[in-house]
Amino acid sequence: MKKYKAVVNGLGNIGREAIAAIEVSGDFECVGVIRRKQSIGKNKNDLRGIDEYTDISDIINKHGKVDVCLQGTPSRNAKEDNIFYLEKGINTVDSFDVHGEIASMVESLDPIAKKNNVVAITSSGWDPGTDSILRTLFEAMIPMGTTFTNFGRGLSMGHSVVARSIEGVSDAFSITIPLGGGKHSRLVYVVLESNANFDDVCKRIKKDDYFAHDSLDVREVKNSTELSRLVDSSHGVLMERTGASGLTSNQILKFDMRINNPALTSQVMLSSARAALRMQAGCYTLIDIPPVYFLEGERLDNIARLV
Amino acid sequence: MKKYKAVVNGLGNIGREAIAAIEVSGDFECVGVIRRKQSIGKNKNDLRGIDEYTDISDIINKHGKVDVCLQGTPSRNAKEDNIFYLEKGINTVDSFDVHGEIASMVESLDPIAKKNNVVAITSSGWDPGTDSILRTLFEAMIPMGTTFTNFGRGLSMGHSVVARSIEGVSDAFSITIPLGGGKHSRLVYVVLESNANFDDVCKRIKKDDYFAHDSLDVREVKNSTELSRLVDSSHGVLMERTGASGLTSNQILKFDMRINNPALTSQVMLSSARAALRMQAGCYTLIDIPPVYFLEGERLDNIARLV
Repeated sequence: MKKYKAVVNGLGNIGREAIAAIEVSGDFECVGVIRRKQSIGKNKNDLRGIDEYTDISDIINKHGKVDVCLQGTPSRNAKEDNIFYLEKGINTVDSFDVHGEIASMVESLDPIAKKNNVVAITSSGWDPGTDSILRTLFEAMIPMGTTFTNFGRGLSMGHSVVARSIEGVSDAFSITIPLGGGKHSRLVYVVLESNANFDDVCKRIKKDDYFAHDSLDVREVKNSTELSRLVDSSHGVLMERTGASGLTSNQILKFDMRINNPALTSQVMLSSARAALRMQAGCYTLIDIPPVYFLEGERLDNIARLV
Repeated sequence: MKKYKAVVNGLGNIGREAIAAIEVSGDFECVGVIRRKQSIGKNKNDLRGIDEYTDISDIINKHGKVDVCLQGTPSRNAKEDNIFYLEKGINTVDSFDVHGEIASMVESLDPIAKKNNVVAITSSGWDPGTDSILRTLFEAMIPMGTTFTNFGRGLSMGHSVVARSIEGVSDAFSITIPLGGGKHSRLVYVVLESNANFDDVCKRIKKDDYFAHDSLDVREVKNSTELSRLVDSSHGVLMERTGASGLTSNQILKFDMRINNPALTSQVMLSSARAALRMQAGCYTLIDIPPVYFLEGERLDNIARLV
């Protein structure tokens, strides 16, 4: 069977796991990893034998048409990176996670994707991503009621980046702890700079908009080595919706997930890459995609097996 | 706002709850209920003020074009009933639940729907239905692994019908009890005919293919009045999938639902009716439908709110 050709842009947590997901899939092959010039040659094991490049043109020259690019670069680069590949006629999948900007990302990329006759799938991870599908499905089942999405316990990359940027902090990680009702506490482990005062640092963290709205627990750790022993890639969600279907109350739905975060994100991105090859040109989120498009195999076989 | 015009075919559990779901929706109105001639005038309260008819032509004459028909008739009538309405240019939604025949239902109805430029959505309930979407989504997240769908505790209509048809049984209900690992026990309450032997009836039930593969517990009840006190519309599912995303094992997903069965089924059918008005002509199951199509409102507003 001819396999679809994917490239992975970046070799961070997402890129590394995307290579693994492609390796065990039956219908995709990874024809190259794009990296910055200064990263070439580093973390060789993460490449799992895939060639690294700085320029997509070199991959195309060697392997021919590339079907899809999985974006493993930071969310702040997603728009620019997507446009770069879309304009080269390559479908894109990203895990852009700035919830407030997703609708405008769709509006920006949709005409570019259509003009180049390709598909961009944005915010394809687990939240935004598969959780978004569940929130939508839960409302279709129970139109009146309340949904709580409870995250954690797990590392928040976004909050960790902000904590590290606080004056007096030399290194930090932020863990999200669910308090129920969709509320969360932030547990921040910090390594202080030599002249920093712990109480001042706490106040500065609490003042940042990322932390101002939740309960906060800051703990000091001696050094980065000790800090690195406290964190891993575990994460989870408990999504709960209770309400009424028609005139009938006490309808109760729960989704509980415990996962390795980058492994799930990258797997969902690969499933979305498969969907991208089945959608009409345009930009989509996961709630725009017929679920059967995510899976290997023929539609009617999957209907017979799963419906 | 102009509302979509729905008719409900049949006034059983599904029809009654479909009327309620339409009543509380913002974008549909029920313009009539189709009933058999001998049922007209019965169960007036279930109609909630909606007019009853024996002939769809009378509804069309009074209200103009009908957008969709929600099928509240038994699964064995689904194909014939769907074809009848599709050929009149009316979209259809059913909750056909014979798992082994869903793919062939799609193949049968698809050309008829396309020829008449309408949409048929089949097997739109919770299983098949929303559970099918979850099974599909869970495989997109965890391609390698096992899914168990554990049903119950709740009344199985299909098993109850079969139990009632057994020689020596005057009335019966069958409750499905989950044993874990996707296995179930069947608890059957029976009212015996006056000359029937309990042990013989148990053997006959156990021999039927519906009961032969599960653990069976038959209990005798004195009469239909006593029997009717044992059953209601509660049901539930625990769906569990554990496996690997890419090369990473121990990814754990659970979906737990406790619901009123006909209320949820009818609500999902109404959400599917909304989707039917947004799909291209053809026949679809729920895994063929972009989830955002199930909801009231504009796509980008729902993306901003739910993704």
